[in-house]
Amino acid sequence: MTKSAQTVGEFLFDYLHSQCGIKTAFGIPGDFALPTFRWLERSKMKLITMTHEPSVGFAADAYARVNGMGVAIVTYCVGGLNMLNSIACAYAEKSPVLVISGGPSPKDREQNEDALIHHKVRTFDTQRHIYEEVTCANAVLLDPATAADEIVRVVETMKRECRPGYIEVPFDVVDMPITPPSNRSKLSPIVRDQEALDACIEEAVEFINKAKQPVILAGIELHRHNLTDNVIRIAEKFNLPIAADLLSKSVVRETHPLYIGVYSGAFSEQACREYIDNSDCVIMLGTFITDMFLGINTAQIKTKRSILITTEEARVGFHGYEKIQLQDVVERLESGAIADRGAFKNPCPAPEIKPLAKENRGKEITIEKFFNTLEHRMEEGSTLVCDTGDAVFGAMRVRTSKRRNFLADAYYLSMGFAVPGAIGAIAESNPQDSGRVFAIVGDGAFQMTGMEVSVAAKYKLAPVVFVLNNDGYGTQRYILDGSFNIINMWDYTKVTELMRYGRSVRVKTLGELDDTLVEIAKNKNEMYLVEVIIPRNDCSPALKSVGEGLAKLRNKEAHPDKA
Amino acid sequence: MTKSAQTVGEFLFDYLHSQCGIKTAFGIPGDFALPTFRWLERSKMKLITMTHEPSVGFAADAYARVNGMGVAIVTYCVGGLNMLNSIACAYAEKSPVLVISGGPSPKDREQNEDALIHHKVRTFDTQRHIYEEVTCANAVLLDPATAADEIVRVVETMKRECRPGYIEVPFDVVDMPITPPSNRSKLSPIVRDQEALDACIEEAVEFINKAKQPVILAGIELHRHNLTDNVIRIAEKFNLPIAADLLSKSVVRETHPLYIGVYSGAFSEQACREYIDNSDCVIMLGTFITDMFLGINTAQIKTKRSILITTEEARVGFHGYEKIQLQDVVERLESGAIADRGAFKNPCPAPEIKPLAKENRGKEITIEKFFNTLEHRMEEGSTLVCDTGDAVFGAMRVRTSKRRNFLADAYYLSMGFAVPGAIGAIAESNPQDSGRVFAIVGDGAFQMTGMEVSVAAKYKLAPVVFVLNNDGYGTQRYILDGSFNIINMWDYTKVTELMRYGRSVRVKTLGELDDTLVEIAKNKNEMYLVEVIIPRNDCSPALKSVGEGLAKLRNKEAHPDKA
Repeated sequence: MTKSAQTVGEFLFDYLHSQCGIKTAFGIPGDFALPTFRWLERSKMKLITMTHEPSVGFAADAYARVNGMGVAIVTYCVGGLNMLNSIACAYAEKSPVLVISGGPSPKDREQNEDALIHHKVRTFDTQRHIYEEVTCANAVLLDPATAADEIVRVVETMKRECRPGYIEVPFDVVDMPITPPSNRSKLSPIVRDQEALDACIEEAVEFINKAKQPVILAGIELHRHNLTDNVIRIAEKFNLPIAADLLSKSVVRETHPLYIGVYSGAFSEQACREYIDNSDCVIMLGTFITDMFLGINTAQIKTKRSILITTEEARVGFHGYEKIQLQDVVERLESGAIADRGAFKNPCPAPEIKPLAKENRGKEITIEKFFNTLEHRMEEGSTLVCDTGDAVFGAMRVRTSKRRNFLADAYYLSMGFAVPGAIGAIAESNPQDSGRVFAIVGDGAFQMTGMEVSVAAKYKLAPVVFVLNNDGYGTQRYILDGSFNIINMWDYTKVTELMRYGRSVRVKTLGELDDTLVEIAKNKNEMYLVEVIIPRNDCSPALKSVGEGLAKLRNKEAHPDKA
Repeated sequence: MTKSAQTVGEFLFDYLHSQCGIKTAFGIPGDFALPTFRWLERSKMKLITMTHEPSVGFAADAYARVNGMGVAIVTYCVGGLNMLNSIACAYAEKSPVLVISGGPSPKDREQNEDALIHHKVRTFDTQRHIYEEVTCANAVLLDPATAADEIVRVVETMKRECRPGYIEVPFDVVDMPITPPSNRSKLSPIVRDQEALDACIEEAVEFINKAKQPVILAGIELHRHNLTDNVIRIAEKFNLPIAADLLSKSVVRETHPLYIGVYSGAFSEQACREYIDNSDCVIMLGTFITDMFLGINTAQIKTKRSILITTEEARVGFHGYEKIQLQDVVERLESGAIADRGAFKNPCPAPEIKPLAKENRGKEITIEKFFNTLEHRMEEGSTLVCDTGDAVFGAMRVRTSKRRNFLADAYYLSMGFAVPGAIGAIAESNPQDSGRVFAIVGDGAFQMTGMEVSVAAKYKLAPVVFVLNNDGYGTQRYILDGSFNIINMWDYTKVTELMRYGRSVRVKTLGELDDTLVEIAKNKNEMYLVEVIIPRNDCSPALKSVGEGLAKLRNKEAHPDKA
């Protein structure tokens, strides 16, 4: 092995930039990580520092969802453990975020494993052990001779599994000369059974061709594994309708003539729900079968009448197949002998978007009307980043005009995703050609991470943040109410003054909202924070269903028949 | 076993209230935890809801440091994992915080362990596995027949070990009738070696009596295990001087005539440092030997010239003893044959506190002068809650007048402790007899958790928050500087307007600070947020030493001789 001219820190960021195409990292420095931050500062990568670690993870996650892979860089334990929830979210929803953490020196570990060095919790490996639970690969770079191979192994595993990875860089090792990586892959080969694949495809094609009403459910794994183009080609070639779920929403552009909407059991739009529940062949590709996807046990998709192919399983009706790759199935279906269905009459097309009627200008802003008004004024290519609660459930029926311009942690459902997520989404966007980034967030979630608009101020970014103010934890009021759902009512319009950046507006009527949206469109380089006053007892039709579904489970007293 | 009239939820909060004396819990609700929140609301315990989970942990931790045990209640994963860092802090610094998390139903686990239920990360036990790393005992209450015994086991272990515990309560089990606890302890008995104890005490007493300059270093475990009174009696009975460290600061009232200050190697005050470094018998009782305690390798305490008794080890000089309890040693020393040293001439007494001189009123506010001015105006019994950075290093030399009125995470050193910690500290305090709670926090840390002043607004509490604004991550500038230490400059005085509660003041001169302190003392029921403008290049003498110590380790380029 020859020594490289590069240090561990130089190699790390050069590799992430040149081999993974990552242009921006998100982070918060801390003393164990400072030497690593210095190498990052000297690299070709850009750094965006956030105000609090939970947001670092969300920003890097959103960046990964848009650009393929993200980097979150923090200090040992006090930084890393404070970001755990966001990385757990990325794990649950398969978003490849690389966590880079500073760490203590190998010398400290060797001298006395019980040494009490600040930031240490129980053992030197506490943080790594914890991250094992939420990452697909991890490494502590104790030795510059193996560091490059370890970096490559972690990143290659992340690419394969689309999950977060963890690399801990001791503060001193980062400055040491690195041994270049060997060229052999450290990953075990993927096992494929060609005969099983043939049999699976044959059965699937026959199943689809015999069906009266086949429909594709395009799951989130298609986007994560770059298979969306293939599936759209399948739909177009054979005239198969296509739906998404809340997590995969915008995996297909939602104005596509074959697109019938977001499926989520009883939470879906009626026509979309009926089409899929009545289908005799639901082709689920890369779909996460979650409780939200199933509309809290209201979905009618039967095993017998469906095909499910994901990175983890493959089945056609009741027949399971082993050693089948999602990518292989998708590619074979594209070139397969599926019968062309001919012109498709869409039962649930993108609705006509109507401007706000004059007589409605004075009316209060309901969640449903908020999204209608926004949809009308939203320019093509705008990105929506939605937080947990009615920000995401209400957005279900908005049709986005481009792929990947809807982002939400719609399965893990952690609050606080949207504002830092918008920072992640905006990082590589060009306002001239890719439209605006809108963060939509409830008041409760805004109080968690909304102050990350500070980052927009620091870097002169121009997101638009809508705070849907319904006076408390509104979603939970529909499940089980109590004084614990009350929060202090902030004056959200003071946030931009506090940040010394951007404009604040409070809107109470549809007319005010519409006018504000017109103003926002004219001021592309200005950050806006819009407090939207929502009636306390209002919610979207979808949330009403979700709330009722969960209330049956959680609130036994209100439903004594279910006790 | 007979069934109790109580449900699992009723028993849980009744037990914590009546058997552990916990009057207030801190939390954020979420759907898996809502039924548990309902039982809490119906119990005798009070609930304080925070805005973001990392703060829930810090508030419960501060409450535990003051009142003996704390409770942090959150929802499954999205809540619990977001609080991990604060509980890791409590683990590292031995603060018994009970984490109560909502969780999925045992039925869901039985039916399909791979089910994707929202908030789930990898397996149903991901959160529990993670919490195993930062707690001394954990339980998932899957069965109401064993739930009471499990609750008792976790809490009893926490009391013994003074560490956090974890109880996960499935959303449906919480409503089920509980079987009362059996009366047998689930804990293994403590093993004591009476002969070893006799030998240890004999050697220790002889060692102390032969010494020319013995000194007690009172560690944090004395407070955690209720042994402070005993150690003060030992000091007073034999006229032994006593010092604390930064983590245990205020374990003894700092105006005690035998008290010589906070020891932290080269970071200490000169006279205190010299007294201890020159001592031929440093009696460390319940002390955590951390890198901060050792002043980053600058302490001169030699094994040969010291006694160390903690819950984990016991040694006199080089002689180690096994199966010795800290409590037994402390009690035996108190009644032991230690020679009375006679009147003690304190080399480092509490300095005379001088009012601000008129000619200094127009001067800028340095960290050192800030603490001098505060100390002069601070009423007896006031509590200081200090954040990481110069908020804690600068406070090192302030003498608090009562025990336990200094709180800081001075070993784990996570940023963001002070504002939520002040909420925890104020929860049971009575402004009439126990003085004011002051949170002291840098601008960087305030941007992390400072918005928890919202909680003061919600519950009409009156803490005083000082934001030491030195324009960025000031501590890190002394270790290794770069653009990553820059943060967006907020207008902190807007925070109270945003909260619609409290008063804001910005002070730039010592006179303004002094006048503000006078005003604050007059308005006991008013929350204050005071932005203190600190010169960018100023820091406390202690931080200067800490920064130099860490810079030698982290910043090899600036110290080529050390590379």
